[in-house]
Amino acid sequence: MAQALEILSTENELFRVYLFYGCILVLKVVAMAPLTAIQRFKHKAFANPEDAVVAKIKPKTHENVERVRRAHLNDLENIPVFLVASLAYILTNPSIWFTTMLFRIFTISRILHTLVYAVVVIPQPARFLAFFAAQIVTTYMAIQSLIYFAK
Amino acid sequence: MAQALEILSTENELFRVYLFYGCILVLKVVAMAPLTAIQRFKHKAFANPEDAVVAKIKPKTHENVERVRRAHLNDLENIPVFLVASLAYILTNPSIWFTTMLFRIFTISRILHTLVYAVVVIPQPARFLAFFAAQIVTTYMAIQSLIYFAK
Amino acid sequence: MAQALEILSTENELFRVYLFYGCILVLKVVAMAPLTAIQRFKHKAFANPEDAVVAKIKPKTHENVERVRRAHLNDLENIPVFLVASLAYILTNPSIWFTTMLFRIFTISRILHTLVYAVVVIPQPARFLAFFAAQIVTTYMAIQSLIYFAK
Repeated sequence: MAQALEILSTENELFRVYLFYGCILVLKVVAMAPLTAIQRFKHKAFANPEDAVVAKIKPKTHENVERVRRAHLNDLENIPVFLVASLAYILTNPSIWFTTMLFRIFTISRILHTLVYAVVVIPQPARFLAFFAAQIVTTYMAIQSLIYFAK
Repeated sequence: MAQALEILSTENELFRVYLFYGCILVLKVVAMAPLTAIQRFKHKAFANPEDAVVAKIKPKTHENVERVRRAHLNDLENIPVFLVASLAYILTNPSIWFTTMLFRIFTISRILHTLVYAVVVIPQPARFLAFFAAQIVTTYMAIQSLIYFAK
Repeated sequence: MAQALEILSTENELFRVYLFYGCILVLKVVAMAPLTAIQRFKHKAFANPEDAVVAKIKPKTHENVERVRRAHLNDLENIPVFLVASLAYILTNPSIWFTTMLFRIFTISRILHTLVYAVVVIPQPARFLAFFAAQIVTTYMAIQSLIYFAK
């Protein structure tokens, strides 16, 4: 019992790793809003009449704005599920070294994904590889946890 | 105190149910990406110029791709909030049998939702019923928890 | 050790605040679905052929429907990351009074955001201010937690 309780303690190194990378990922997602705003003002492309009125133009779309929005949506498709899968995973008593590696791979992959998608567009398979590395980490963690908690 | 602590322990059956179904839902959402990719390649409908270049065509949209994307977005609208509502709910000391039932109804409903929306299109009210069953579970859990934690 | 364990207990006032506002935010997001449905029926604007057939029309979009959908997407961009940042934050041993204030500011800001965006459209900077207040809370909590858990 005691061992199980210690897992969700802030004294537990695994839980601290989870919270640390979780907060970096939160800030990464939060940064997408100003990144979208920059592109909207740069290309004068606003989604709502009340926003466009500032620039005295009609609402319109621009490819560079849509690109940041797709990168943002891709974050929403991948980061919340990772934060659930990785919470389950740290409760399966994995090695600290390996788990920290997985958190680093996921976090770096997601940052690279946005960079090659919406900041400096780099030809494929750059974006695919960044996406795939993060996807593999989430899938691995979810399957390992599923096996562990099905017992 | 001891009783409250035991709730977020992996020795606790309720928390294991939460983690088990949480991981199934994670894998369900993760599977939407390859499902979208299959439709994109099948209909040669890519969102970005650097993706379309592989097929030597221009970016375009296709109804079957948009359908999978809407199903994916609907997951994002419903699954993360369920995982928060159900975490709060298992902390209210509910019966294991009833809670497991609710997790099963939600999980099966969400899988059916994607099947009738994006795999084999079935006329309404199939999709509405799948959506509604899951929505009811989340709402019930959130309201029960709200009452419990407002005390 | 004992102190760390008590944090994720339902006897802990900070965790109860987290669960209480978490459930209010869940219900707020859940309410976006019927809000979208109302606008879809009002303007007979459906996204899928099998939905439009009910009204014997073709699928189409309408600005008021898109407005609710953008408000909903904005929730998904901001609420799940807040629930992660604020979970980390309550584990840093902050004052109950200040933390409760932050939860209230975030929750009220997000409700106001939807009201001025999709219910009664109010000119800017109303929506920007509601968005910004919530964004600041999430950023503050994530940075504070990052510093705390990097130690």
